[in-house]
Amino acid sequence: MRVLILGGDGYLGWPQALYLSQKGYEVAVFDNQARRHFDLKQGFDSLIPIQTVHQRIESWKAITGKTIHAYHGDTTDWPALSRAFQEFQPEAVVHFAEQRAAPYSMIDREHAVHTQYTNVIGTLNVLYAIKDYTPSAHLVKLGTMGEYGTPNIDIEEGFIEIEHKGRKDTLPFPKQPGSFYHLSKVHDSHNIHFCCRVWGLRSTDLNQGVVYGADTDETLLAPELATRFDYDQIYGTALNRFCIQSAVGYPLTVYGRGGQTRGYIHVRDTVRCIELAIQSEPKAGEFRVFNQITEWFSVNDLAQRVQRVGNAMGLNVQLQQLSNPRVELEEHYYNVVHTKLLDLGLQPHLLNDAEVEHLINVAIQHRDRVNPRLIAPTVNWRETENQVAQTPEPTPAT
Amino acid sequence: MRVLILGGDGYLGWPQALYLSQKGYEVAVFDNQARRHFDLKQGFDSLIPIQTVHQRIESWKAITGKTIHAYHGDTTDWPALSRAFQEFQPEAVVHFAEQRAAPYSMIDREHAVHTQYTNVIGTLNVLYAIKDYTPSAHLVKLGTMGEYGTPNIDIEEGFIEIEHKGRKDTLPFPKQPGSFYHLSKVHDSHNIHFCCRVWGLRSTDLNQGVVYGADTDETLLAPELATRFDYDQIYGTALNRFCIQSAVGYPLTVYGRGGQTRGYIHVRDTVRCIELAIQSEPKAGEFRVFNQITEWFSVNDLAQRVQRVGNAMGLNVQLQQLSNPRVELEEHYYNVVHTKLLDLGLQPHLLNDAEVEHLINVAIQHRDRVNPRLIAPTVNWRETENQVAQTPEPTPAT
Repeated sequence: MRVLILGGDGYLGWPQALYLSQKGYEVAVFDNQARRHFDLKQGFDSLIPIQTVHQRIESWKAITGKTIHAYHGDTTDWPALSRAFQEFQPEAVVHFAEQRAAPYSMIDREHAVHTQYTNVIGTLNVLYAIKDYTPSAHLVKLGTMGEYGTPNIDIEEGFIEIEHKGRKDTLPFPKQPGSFYHLSKVHDSHNIHFCCRVWGLRSTDLNQGVVYGADTDETLLAPELATRFDYDQIYGTALNRFCIQSAVGYPLTVYGRGGQTRGYIHVRDTVRCIELAIQSEPKAGEFRVFNQITEWFSVNDLAQRVQRVGNAMGLNVQLQQLSNPRVELEEHYYNVVHTKLLDLGLQPHLLNDAEVEHLINVAIQHRDRVNPRLIAPTVNWRETENQVAQTPEPTPAT
Repeated sequence: MRVLILGGDGYLGWPQALYLSQKGYEVAVFDNQARRHFDLKQGFDSLIPIQTVHQRIESWKAITGKTIHAYHGDTTDWPALSRAFQEFQPEAVVHFAEQRAAPYSMIDREHAVHTQYTNVIGTLNVLYAIKDYTPSAHLVKLGTMGEYGTPNIDIEEGFIEIEHKGRKDTLPFPKQPGSFYHLSKVHDSHNIHFCCRVWGLRSTDLNQGVVYGADTDETLLAPELATRFDYDQIYGTALNRFCIQSAVGYPLTVYGRGGQTRGYIHVRDTVRCIELAIQSEPKAGEFRVFNQITEWFSVNDLAQRVQRVGNAMGLNVQLQQLSNPRVELEEHYYNVVHTKLLDLGLQPHLLNDAEVEHLINVAIQHRDRVNPRLIAPTVNWRETENQVAQTPEPTPAT
């Protein structure tokens, strides 16, 4: 089966490409190098060194004999996108090609506009490309659990049956996203759902939790196959960032009271979930939603666990409570239904101390590459101009 | 009070400007002439002749002595938009400045992208302009009843209390919009709601029904003050279009079975609703939603009424059922809560035969300006390329 991975050079797109290629799928990646370009502009970098997309693909070929096709392009560039669809004729399209950081979207007006433009218009183009060139292709779209926000009722998988004034309907689950980034994913979900209804497209919208983990079986085959690992204030997500902070002696930065609870998933489970979605194709016109998480934690749960494991490794791990730069509930109800991927056969890798220790060891291995200046949050949800490029000098714990 | 009307040269924006100016508000309009530009490109025109924005404003000054300020600009042009906010310092912002036609958004990929870009990015800029320059200004945003779609439960005003598995929350009403245009308004609503939560902006989102009517007390003061009146397949809405069709001997074009039911409101009530919204300012951080309709009709209700009234006027009015170019339910439940504007004092002008006769007479007066080529629908929801410019030759009933 031919699978086109949009954003196939990113933190998740790359391991996904390797995983599916290893399993025998014919894989092409389509990527605009936006994440790497942001690093170049800001002086950020992946903790784990990574090869260019050209080098990685050559290494994969050398190691496994398998070919991954590559397109350089942007989803907002219709000629580039449509050429990839026309040439490669995908049977499944995995869409990671979005600006993926909430803090990025909150930097200032330009970054908010760039996020919604890239994500919403890019996805509109993807929908038209499928309709025009490969109308039976299955769109597997990466959404986020953050689309739901933190309602005071259980979070269902995309739809909820509502009984109201004696009548009933099953309707899209109401969304209360918490950043211009999360909003862009809500907009995408509405657009995709519409195209399934009107054009008969088939799609699976994966409301993914926060992904952690540094490697998969395939990325571990050779250092040249490594995927990026982010610890900066913009792209670094909670658990990964805490492990790196503990490795370099920087206090674990807990935003606010730390009761913020989110769904999490290991990158190994992410790549498997997407294969499960591809293997179980929806019907024409069907818009499925899966909640792609395996468990949930509060920020305090994670910080305390990393502190405990780090201290047992002989590190001196401190917690530092920062005033919350985000606007969010810091204590709230959270219960998520997530049975659809389990029903398809997912066997979760749940978080354990060994994984935390592994992540800390990865960070220790590369600790000379850490720039502490990139860690402290400077993007505040309440402001409209946050000068990321002019972050203050760091004050790491020593 | 200073009121900035974005899109203040349009079908509704212009009567709104006159109404508020007459009532003593200090009014500025901000408009990019997009609707008129579309006419120029396509060879479309308003049934009722209209003056340029410069001429209209001069006429208003000559007739009433009142000044309406004017800015030429586009909401997606940040320098132009921010200059208007900085100079005029609005206390209320009425936002009509969006691409407003569902068929336009379904013409092809470019028109879908243009609609969502203009509406979503333009509104993002409006939100940032308010936050940056006039943070206590009240944003009165024109949404649409079409955001809700046609759920099988009563449509509440923006929010619904949901009881689910023994817990309760009041959440945004789930949306199932029926075109890329309607989707853009859903995206706006989510973005605006977020900015109220995070920045403490105050906003009223008006989910407006289909507006009909050709005039208000102010536009009737002189022919130079007339507002546009559209009958074409792209911008002409059901009741206005039926009255014009009956006047020129073109059959009333009913799409599909005609059971499609929608909320309606007269333009006289629209201008009053917006004043009511402005007068009753929401609290900082509050996101209010009003369903701005006064009653609802099916397409068949309207067609049969226009036929009856037209025949009584001596016309020979025929109905023509066309295969539905849209994808929508043609028979469905529809019940809408719309008490908030009534509670604020709205006294509805409900549709009656005299209004239909008036609209037909307006159309008869200008019937030499009707180009029947513009009436038949050529934009099909199921297609991705609809050639509006190459519409087939008309076959009007004679």
